[in-house]
Amino acid sequence: MCIVIRKAEVKDCPGIFDLITELAIHEKHQDQMKISLEKFREDGFGDNTKFQCFVAECEENDTLRLIGYVIYFNTYSTWQGKCIHMEDIYVVPEYRSKGIGSKLIGSVCKVADLQNCGRVQFIVRDSNKSAMKFYKHQGAIDLTEVQEWHLFRLTSDAIEKVAAKYD
Amino acid sequence: MCIVIRKAEVKDCPGIFDLITELAIHEKHQDQMKISLEKFREDGFGDNTKFQCFVAECEENDTLRLIGYVIYFNTYSTWQGKCIHMEDIYVVPEYRSKGIGSKLIGSVCKVADLQNCGRVQFIVRDSNKSAMKFYKHQGAIDLTEVQEWHLFRLTSDAIEKVAAKYD
Repeated sequence: MCIVIRKAEVKDCPGIFDLITELAIHEKHQDQMKISLEKFREDGFGDNTKFQCFVAECEENDTLRLIGYVIYFNTYSTWQGKCIHMEDIYVVPEYRSKGIGSKLIGSVCKVADLQNCGRVQFIVRDSNKSAMKFYKHQGAIDLTEVQEWHLFRLTSDAIEKVAAKYD
Repeated sequence: MCIVIRKAEVKDCPGIFDLITELAIHEKHQDQMKISLEKFREDGFGDNTKFQCFVAECEENDTLRLIGYVIYFNTYSTWQGKCIHMEDIYVVPEYRSKGIGSKLIGSVCKVADLQNCGRVQFIVRDSNKSAMKFYKHQGAIDLTEVQEWHLFRLTSDAIEKVAAKYD
């Protein structure tokens, strides 16, 4: 099995977008996918890049196939400075438990190390016990468990209402 | 009481940095503040801006005083596109319960609305019940409570180890 982890290129966009859609279907939230392939391409590879991406690629019957990806971007902490947030990490079912997820995370950690980022953060659902165990094994801290941090979100309707209130 | 909410300028850096330090002391984590005033100034107002900031300013005895701030930056969702994360939001104790926090959040929501961001996210500690209640009142969803999302973090030591493993 010859698997290569490499930086995503613009030509990978349709393949990555298929995997994003696969993940959304898997999570039963395809209705929440608001962006198009064209917008995704512009956001990742246009003039004002909004995220970075590594892909896992495999040779199958003389054809190269994208079998996983990780999307990440820089964030900021007023205590630590520049940090990284990992947004999506996904490996297709038939290639799981082969260390590909670890290698994708490893690639992001290499970037974090080079950029001297003090934190790499991401969110995991409580129901995904195997992932939680895996991340802890890599040395990650569950801040919700240990420090009781809750993630809050304002969505479009609430954003509009709050914005209008303070005009 | 005449309070103005406005976009932070480079001249505000020492004042904002004092408030960040005050917040770190309040949270008993001053030891985790790794950045200097100079680095903070460069990160916020240099060539490669890493965050945006609004400040709350008040006139006290003919002197202008910074009494609060909110730090935010753009993030990315593969489902929603461009989003916003609010990192810090702080108002000095003697000016709390006067609607200043709401106005600071309102300013960020106005930006989110203009940028057509589908999400404004932030984290709150479970012990901060009054803040949790306030945010819910503004229409925010507690994703940890409702969807059981946990926030995970890799810090420097773990980042280095994971990065080295996949070299």
